[in-house]
Amino acid sequence: MKKIAIDMDEVMADFSSKHLRLFNQRFQDTLTIEDLQGTRLRQLRPHLANEITAIIDEDNFFRDLDVVEGSQEVIRELSKDYEIYITTAAMEHPTSFHGKYEWLCEHFSFISPMNYVFCGDKSIINADYLIDDNARNFAGFRGQGLLFTAPHNRDVTGYTRVNNWYEVLEFFKNDIR
Amino acid sequence: MKKIAIDMDEVMADFSSKHLRLFNQRFQDTLTIEDLQGTRLRQLRPHLANEITAIIDEDNFFRDLDVVEGSQEVIRELSKDYEIYITTAAMEHPTSFHGKYEWLCEHFSFISPMNYVFCGDKSIINADYLIDDNARNFAGFRGQGLLFTAPHNRDVTGYTRVNNWYEVLEFFKNDIR
Repeated sequence: MKKIAIDMDEVMADFSSKHLRLFNQRFQDTLTIEDLQGTRLRQLRPHLANEITAIIDEDNFFRDLDVVEGSQEVIRELSKDYEIYITTAAMEHPTSFHGKYEWLCEHFSFISPMNYVFCGDKSIINADYLIDDNARNFAGFRGQGLLFTAPHNRDVTGYTRVNNWYEVLEFFKNDIR
Repeated sequence: MKKIAIDMDEVMADFSSKHLRLFNQRFQDTLTIEDLQGTRLRQLRPHLANEITAIIDEDNFFRDLDVVEGSQEVIRELSKDYEIYITTAAMEHPTSFHGKYEWLCEHFSFISPMNYVFCGDKSIINADYLIDDNARNFAGFRGQGLLFTAPHNRDVTGYTRVNNWYEVLEFFKNDIR
């Protein structure tokens, strides 16, 4: 069975909405997701870069993120024909371990924890496909990368792009298993 | 650069000694490492299987394990010619995440946390070599497995075996990079 590796943040879990909401609350700002198109919060507000990172490092930041639309039904569908692995870059934020683990158990209970991978550099991942919003993770990856659209990657070119989970399903309908 | 993936427990970290010491203390037993040759604690004392697992799940069990002799100097030496990744099956014991992370940062500070991989099924690992005490992790692994001797695997055959870290160094001296 072919393996599909799937990133969490911005792909399965809606990271930006909560991050932006907490940032606006704490710093009396009024940024929107539209403002993040083609950029990142820390680039828009560089003088608050440390505070922006600190929000992510708070205990349980990752525990209650919203589930990205379509991810549950499409991943469940793909899991019939592919081995699904969740490959998330957790090592930059070790406080995220438990929140991420519990979030996956709650929202994707049909995937075994034995298929969770908390890593840093994703060139260590042995899969046929990697669905990720960070194109840098495709460097050194041995399979095919699918760039999942997120505000920050809007202008990134040179990769097969999927705009949402329904496009992911469409892509794999044409795949030779 | 070729990649070497290295397991933690029984390979870098002396898991059995602490586990056995705590077990003996709590259950007034007198088992020794010799008794574990070719078997496991839960096979020797099956009526205490749940208690044996519970010891591992205690917070900080993994935080103060002893470092396996030779691992620091040999891994540091190998890191000059190979990319080193630490690939540990943490998903069966999620309480181990922080202890394992901090232990690695303390004892192997020359390896970037970006090269830590906390996983379950190791067939997801893309490396040229995997040094591991559990032969089951070589099933589906795309590279070469090196079975690191531990009490429980004494009778396992069919793999390239390394008895200690100095034998690991010797093995890689003959490797074509």
